[in-house]
Amino acid sequence: MAAKDIVHDIVREALEKEGWLITCDPFFLRVSENIGMFIDLAADKLLLAQRETFKIAIEVKSFVGLSNLTDFHLSVGQFLNYRLALEEFEPDRILYLAIPDDIYNTFFQDSFVQKVIKNYGIKLITVNPKKREITLWQPSLTSN
Amino acid sequence: MAAKDIVHDIVREALEKEGWLITCDPFFLRVSENIGMFIDLAADKLLLAQRETFKIAIEVKSFVGLSNLTDFHLSVGQFLNYRLALEEFEPDRILYLAIPDDIYNTFFQDSFVQKVIKNYGIKLITVNPKKREITLWQPSLTSN
Repeated sequence: MAAKDIVHDIVREALEKEGWLITCDPFFLRVSENIGMFIDLAADKLLLAQRETFKIAIEVKSFVGLSNLTDFHLSVGQFLNYRLALEEFEPDRILYLAIPDDIYNTFFQDSFVQKVIKNYGIKLITVNPKKREITLWQPSLTSN
Repeated sequence: MAAKDIVHDIVREALEKEGWLITCDPFFLRVSENIGMFIDLAADKLLLAQRETFKIAIEVKSFVGLSNLTDFHLSVGQFLNYRLALEEFEPDRILYLAIPDDIYNTFFQDSFVQKVIKNYGIKLITVNPKKREITLWQPSLTSN
């Protein structure tokens, strides 16, 4: 199994541990007559405190390519294109980029990467691959 | 020579035909302590009518990958990251995405692709690979 698939499955399992129901794997979105896009996961969760069902879509990136920077460029492009599509077709579904926590603690701490994340409002989930748990929601879901 | 390199050289030649001086090939931009990025080309031109030297940077994309959509995601991510870097380090240099005109006349006419281009303000140059000439500036340089 490719490393990408391993991280995908870890994110899926980690979300389920937190009570999320995986509704699509992958989540297909038709955006025009000729273009359909596959976002990695869609999940729903009823948060009783808010009396509200939260809906998320998740782009999973393992950052195991030849270059972290190229993987980052691709992640940013996918995130912004998927978010634009969701705004039109599923405006109540919030998009997150899911990454392993080791890449968050290293490459993602770079000042330029942080600037991109902040400037484009990219929401992050990090997972610990060993514990198969989510370690960070940035920002937290309820603060959106 | 890879197809990517062929389009790169065509764009370079087409710019020179229009009187641009290629100043960097590639154009290296250090954006943080650990990250340096290579934008494909940088070029300058004195426009007498405006009595002004215009400076551009060009990301060249041949769209010969396995999927136009993946190439498009990567193009959007690179464009937005490069533009953010230029705003900080070379704010008077305008970024363009250069593509072959056949991909502009097909894939780029899709309604979702057009929406992305408009929404994120992506500036385009198209080239005719046979004539080795620029066929479109969108928007034109002087209307920026």
